[in-house]
Amino acid sequence: MTGIALLTVPTADPGDTHAFQVLTESGYRADDLVSVIGKTEGNGCVNDFSRGLAAAIWEPRIPEAAVTVFSGGTEGVLSPHVNLFVRDEKRYPGFDRGLVAAARRSRSLDPAEIGRAAQIDTVTETVAKLLAELGVTPGDVHLVLVKCPLLTSDTITALHTAGQVPVATDTYASMGFSRAASSLGIAVALGECDRETALSALAGEADVWSARASASAGAELDDCHILVVAESPTAANPLRAVHGHMTDAIDLASVQQLLSRIAAEGGTVRQIFAKAEADPTGSVRGLRHTMLTDSDINATRHARGAVGGLLAGLKGDGAVYVSGGAEHQGPPGGGSITVIYELPTPDRNEAP
Amino acid sequence: MTGIALLTVPTADPGDTHAFQVLTESGYRADDLVSVIGKTEGNGCVNDFSRGLAAAIWEPRIPEAAVTVFSGGTEGVLSPHVNLFVRDEKRYPGFDRGLVAAARRSRSLDPAEIGRAAQIDTVTETVAKLLAELGVTPGDVHLVLVKCPLLTSDTITALHTAGQVPVATDTYASMGFSRAASSLGIAVALGECDRETALSALAGEADVWSARASASAGAELDDCHILVVAESPTAANPLRAVHGHMTDAIDLASVQQLLSRIAAEGGTVRQIFAKAEADPTGSVRGLRHTMLTDSDINATRHARGAVGGLLAGLKGDGAVYVSGGAEHQGPPGGGSITVIYELPTPDRNEAP
Amino acid sequence: MTGIALLTVPTADPGDTHAFQVLTESGYRADDLVSVIGKTEGNGCVNDFSRGLAAAIWEPRIPEAAVTVFSGGTEGVLSPHVNLFVRDEKRYPGFDRGLVAAARRSRSLDPAEIGRAAQIDTVTETVAKLLAELGVTPGDVHLVLVKCPLLTSDTITALHTAGQVPVATDTYASMGFSRAASSLGIAVALGECDRETALSALAGEADVWSARASASAGAELDDCHILVVAESPTAANPLRAVHGHMTDAIDLASVQQLLSRIAAEGGTVRQIFAKAEADPTGSVRGLRHTMLTDSDINATRHARGAVGGLLAGLKGDGAVYVSGGAEHQGPPGGGSITVIYELPTPDRNEAP
Amino acid sequence: MTGIALLTVPTADPGDTHAFQVLTESGYRADDLVSVIGKTEGNGCVNDFSRGLAAAIWEPRIPEAAVTVFSGGTEGVLSPHVNLFVRDEKRYPGFDRGLVAAARRSRSLDPAEIGRAAQIDTVTETVAKLLAELGVTPGDVHLVLVKCPLLTSDTITALHTAGQVPVATDTYASMGFSRAASSLGIAVALGECDRETALSALAGEADVWSARASASAGAELDDCHILVVAESPTAANPLRAVHGHMTDAIDLASVQQLLSRIAAEGGTVRQIFAKAEADPTGSVRGLRHTMLTDSDINATRHARGAVGGLLAGLKGDGAVYVSGGAEHQGPPGGGSITVIYELPTPDRNEAP
Repeated sequence: MTGIALLTVPTADPGDTHAFQVLTESGYRADDLVSVIGKTEGNGCVNDFSRGLAAAIWEPRIPEAAVTVFSGGTEGVLSPHVNLFVRDEKRYPGFDRGLVAAARRSRSLDPAEIGRAAQIDTVTETVAKLLAELGVTPGDVHLVLVKCPLLTSDTITALHTAGQVPVATDTYASMGFSRAASSLGIAVALGECDRETALSALAGEADVWSARASASAGAELDDCHILVVAESPTAANPLRAVHGHMTDAIDLASVQQLLSRIAAEGGTVRQIFAKAEADPTGSVRGLRHTMLTDSDINATRHARGAVGGLLAGLKGDGAVYVSGGAEHQGPPGGGSITVIYELPTPDRNEAP
Repeated sequence: MTGIALLTVPTADPGDTHAFQVLTESGYRADDLVSVIGKTEGNGCVNDFSRGLAAAIWEPRIPEAAVTVFSGGTEGVLSPHVNLFVRDEKRYPGFDRGLVAAARRSRSLDPAEIGRAAQIDTVTETVAKLLAELGVTPGDVHLVLVKCPLLTSDTITALHTAGQVPVATDTYASMGFSRAASSLGIAVALGECDRETALSALAGEADVWSARASASAGAELDDCHILVVAESPTAANPLRAVHGHMTDAIDLASVQQLLSRIAAEGGTVRQIFAKAEADPTGSVRGLRHTMLTDSDINATRHARGAVGGLLAGLKGDGAVYVSGGAEHQGPPGGGSITVIYELPTPDRNEAP
Repeated sequence: MTGIALLTVPTADPGDTHAFQVLTESGYRADDLVSVIGKTEGNGCVNDFSRGLAAAIWEPRIPEAAVTVFSGGTEGVLSPHVNLFVRDEKRYPGFDRGLVAAARRSRSLDPAEIGRAAQIDTVTETVAKLLAELGVTPGDVHLVLVKCPLLTSDTITALHTAGQVPVATDTYASMGFSRAASSLGIAVALGECDRETALSALAGEADVWSARASASAGAELDDCHILVVAESPTAANPLRAVHGHMTDAIDLASVQQLLSRIAAEGGTVRQIFAKAEADPTGSVRGLRHTMLTDSDINATRHARGAVGGLLAGLKGDGAVYVSGGAEHQGPPGGGSITVIYELPTPDRNEAP
Repeated sequence: MTGIALLTVPTADPGDTHAFQVLTESGYRADDLVSVIGKTEGNGCVNDFSRGLAAAIWEPRIPEAAVTVFSGGTEGVLSPHVNLFVRDEKRYPGFDRGLVAAARRSRSLDPAEIGRAAQIDTVTETVAKLLAELGVTPGDVHLVLVKCPLLTSDTITALHTAGQVPVATDTYASMGFSRAASSLGIAVALGECDRETALSALAGEADVWSARASASAGAELDDCHILVVAESPTAANPLRAVHGHMTDAIDLASVQQLLSRIAAEGGTVRQIFAKAEADPTGSVRGLRHTMLTDSDINATRHARGAVGGLLAGLKGDGAVYVSGGAEHQGPPGGGSITVIYELPTPDRNEAP
C-alpha cells in the first residue's frame, strides 16, 4: 500500500520547478514522489514541446520509480500546474481508510504496436501489476492515468520503409488511436470488458468505455507512464475520490451530482481529473458544433477549452486537469471524470 | 414602441437562410425583422469571412431599416445560430409590459475615427435616437448591441499615406479599440458616465464599463449597426430580460444569481447574450492563464470557448451568444451579460 | 473552339467585384466569362468561408455555363486575385493557333461518392465532354482545373446514420480523398492511365499522377467545377502554355526550365498555376520538414506558403495561383505546374 | 582572434543532441563551441517552448562563455537544425585570412528596459566588446546575431503593479520592440548610425537599418545572447561571407547577386542567415498580402514560410536559417542576409 498526499502547485512555465520548494515546505522529499501529473501550456497535440520541456526538467529530478504525465493544452481559463502524488504513509487520526497510488512505466512500444492490440495488452498488464502492488481490487480504483506515445512523420516513414503499416498516416490521428488502445487496456484491467471486446472496440465495432480511464499521448516518450489511484483500508488519510462521467461536453448535471456527494460528506474538492472531446457526431444535444470542421484549431483544443470553462467555474479556479481526446474514456462526446477531495478531520465534524 | 418576439434558429453554415422559413412558419414576415443577431463560425477576428458571407446573404433579404450583427467565433460547444428580433405588436393577454427593441445604422465612420472620440459620439447619438424612438429611458434598457468597423492593412496604409495616425497599426488590436469606443458610447448614452470620463477611459485613464453593452468589430462594415433592447409598458408580451455582469471568466455565481431571479418568476431562459475576455492581468483569481501568451490562438477565441462552455452548461445548449473582447463591457476580465427569458402565460401562474 | 483571353485582377477582399470593371474596360462583357479561377484569403481548408463568400458574390453574376473555382489560402507573399478566362474569338493577326478553354459543372456527387470511383468517373466524363466541345485531343491540353466537394461533420454523420461509410471521418482528410479522385479522373480522361490503374492509385496501390491536373476541394459546392485549357489551331491568339512538374517543393530547376522555354520564345509570363504539398515522407531531399507534425497549421497551408514564396520570387509578384494538396497532381511531395504566357506580336519580332 | 569552423547539423527534435557526435567525429570538442545557432520547430512566437527545450538541453552542455541562439519557426520547407560555430585556430594552407567569431551574453535586462534605449545601449556595448575581442573593425563584420528577451503576461503585470509602463501590453508585439532595440544597438556598434538616430528610429521617427543585424526574441532568457561573425587576416581558413539585403520578400535578384559573387570565387554555400518580415504596408510590389490581417497565423510565421521557400530553393535544401521579424534588419518588408561560404582549397583552384 502507498498512502498518498496530493499537492497541486501552479507553474510559471513548463520548466518551472518551484513545486519542489512547495514539496519541501510541506514536509516531503523528492524521493517521496510517486507521480507528477501536469498540465502544460502547449497545444496538446503532436508538436507540443511544452510537454517535452517539462519532462526534460522533471525526469532527472524524480525517483527512478516515479512517473510523469504531462498533458498539454491549457485553453481558455485552464491554468498550468502540476499535481504531485506524494507517498505519505502517515496514519491520520480518525481515518480508517484513504487514497493510495502507485505508478510504473510499461515496456517500450514499437511504433508498429502503437494504437494496436499490443498496446492494449501492455497497458492491461502494467495496470494489473499496479493493482497487485497496491493490494486493491478493480472496484477500489477511481482513476488510471496513462501517458502513451504517438507516431511522428519519422516513425511513420520508418514503418513504411520497413514494409509495415502504421495505425495512422496522420500524426494527429495517431494520438487518438494511442489513447484508445490505452483506455481499452485500462478497461480490460479493471474488468469492465474482456480483451476480445476491447479489440472489437478498437476496430470501431463495439462501444466500450471506462469512466476511470484518462489517457493522453505525446511525442516525448516511447513507453507508457501509468498511475493508478484507489481507495484502500490499508491507508488512513483524509483523501477520497469519486468518479463518474459527463455524457456530453455540457453535462453540468453529472458533475454537480458528484460534487453534491462530496458536499454531503463535508468534503473539499482538491482536484478534478476530466477528459473531454468533440462529439464525433458533430453536434451536442442536437445543435451543431464546429470543432471537427475547424481547420485552424484542433478539436481537442476546443474540447479542453469548453469543458475547462465549465469545470473551472464549478471548482472556482482554473487549475483543473482537463485532458483532450476521450476515446473510450467516458461515452462518445462526453468524458470520464474523477474528483479527489479531502474529508474534514473528524473532530471538526463531531459534536463534543 | 416596438414589441418584439425572439426566434433563435440554428444555422447549417454562415450562408444558411433556413431561418426565413422558420420566420414564416412562426407567422412573421421578413418585413417584420428588426434585427438579425448571429453567431457565425469564423475566427471572430480580422479575417473572419463567415461574418462577411452571412452579411452578404442576409443584408439583401431584410428591411432597409433592420440591422445585422454577426459575431464570429463558435469555439468549443458554441453552436452557430441567428437570433431574430421580430416586430410583434400583438398585446398578449395577461401582460401589461414587455420587451421592445429598435435598431439603426450610424453614419459611416472614417478610418481615422475608429477607436476614437468620434466613434464614441456617433454611438452615443445613435443609441439616444433609438431610446427616443422606443420611448424608453436608460433605466429600461437591458442590452445595447453594436457591430462596429475595424482597421485593415489597407485602411492603415491609406491613413499613413494621408499623413494620419491610425488608432492601432496592428489589425487585431484595432478591433479592441473599436469595441472600446462603441461600449463607452453606450455608457454615455445610458447615463453610466459622462463624455469626459468616457474619453479618459478610452485613453486608459479611467475605469468605466457598462453591464448592458455588447460590442463586436468586423471588416464587413464601415458604420455601426446598433440594436437596443428594453422593457416597456407600451408593449404587452411575455418576454423579459435581466442583466448583470460576470466579474471574471469563471464567475458562475453571478450567472446563477440571474438565473435564480428568472426561475423565481417561473421564467424560461430564451437566450443569453454575454461578453467574454482574457483577464488583462494574465491571471484569473490569482492563477495564471495563457490566453495572452498564446501566439497560435487569439485571446478572444480562448475567452469565448471558456465562457461558452460555462454558459452552455447552464443554458443546456450551445446556441448561446458569447462574443469576445469585453473592453468596457463589464469589469476587466469579466463581461456584461443579458438574459432574455419568457414568462409563463398568467393562467398557468395563478391559483384557481 | 473557344479562343480565350486571360485577365488577372487583384481583389481587395473575397467579395470584391472590381474585376467586372476591369473586364469591361478591357472590352469584354460578363457574358464572355468562361471561368473565374480565384485565390481567396481563407485557410484553404474545411472552414474556409472566403471561398463561400466569393462564390456567393460571383455565381449570380456570371453566365449559367461558366464555372468558378476558388482556391483558398494566400499564405506568405501570395496575393488574393482572380483569373478571368474570357471568350475571345478574335483572330489576332500573325497567329495561327492559340489557347482555348471550356468549362462545365459535373452532376452533383452524393456524399458517399466523394473520394471514390464514382467521382473519378464523373470527372473523367466531364473532362471528356470538354475536350470534345473544344475539339482538342489530350495531347493539346495544358491544364485541367477542378473544384470538388468535401465531407463536413453533417454529411459524415448523415452517411453513418444511413449505414454508409464515408471515405474519411476527418473532414480535413476528406479534402485529400476528393482531390485525389478528381485528379485521377483527369489522368484517365487525358489517357495518362486507365481506369483500373486509377482505382488502384486511389487505393494507395499504384503511383499515378498527372502534370496537368489541379484539383482543390471546398464545402461550398456539391458538384465538380471543371475548366480545361488547351492549345488549338482553331484559335489565333498570342496566349500559349507550358506544363511540367516540380519533383519536390524546392525544385527551382524544373520551374526555371519552363521559364527558359518561354524566354526562348520571347514570351511574357501571364500566370503560373501550381500545386504544392508537404512531402508525405516527412522530409525534402533528406532533410526533415515539420509540415506534417505541426498541429497548429495544416500542411497544405505550409506547402502553399513555401512554394508560393519560390514562385512569386520567380514571377516577380505574388498573384500566383498556388493550390495546396497535390495528390496525383505531380509526383509525391512535388506538384503539377502550368505556365500561361503571351507571345509578342509578330511585327515586334520580325525584322522589317 | 578566433578562427572558426561551421557545422550545420539536422535535428530530430528540439532536444536532439546528435550534433555533439558530429562535433566529435569532425575532430572538435564541446569546449570548442563558440555558439550554437539553431532553428527549432515551434511557432517562433511568445509561447514557443521548442526554443526553451533546446536551451534546457544545450545550455548545460556548452562552455560557460558560449552562447545559444534558438530561433523558432520552421514553416514550410525549412528544416530544424543547428549551426555550430566552433573554434578552429588551425591555419589552413593557402589561406591568409578567414572567418572569425566571438560570442557573449549581455547583462540581464530589466523588463522595463526591454525594447527601449537601455537595450540599445546594452547591445551596442556588448557588440563593441566582441569587436575588440576579435580585433576587427566594423567594416570586417558580416553578421551580428542577437537573441533577446520579450515580455510575458507576468512581466507586463509586474511592471504595471510597480507603476511602470511596459513597451507593449501585447506579448507578441513586445517581440518586435525587443528585436528593434537589439538591431539598432547593432547598427550603432557598427557605426551605421549614431545613438541619437537609433533612438529616433526606435520611436518610429527615423528609418535606419543594418544589413548585418539578425535579432530574434524569446521568453527563455532575460539577457541578450550575441554572436559576431567577421572576416580577419588573423585567421587562415577557407570560410568567407557576403552580406546584403532583400528589398522585399520576393527579392530573388538581390540573393542571386550574392550567390553570383560566391560562384565567381568558386565558393560553396555553407549557410544562409536571413531575416524576413511581412511588408508593413500590407502589400509587396503593389499587390496586397494577407500576412497582417490573418488572425490565425502570425505574420512572422507567414514571412518565414515564404522567404524560406525562396531561399531553400536557391540553396537546394531546407536547412536555412530564416528568422522572422526584421525590424531595422534590412529595409521595411525586406531583410538582412548573410551567406557563409567555403572557398576551394587553393591547389584545386590553380592550374598546375
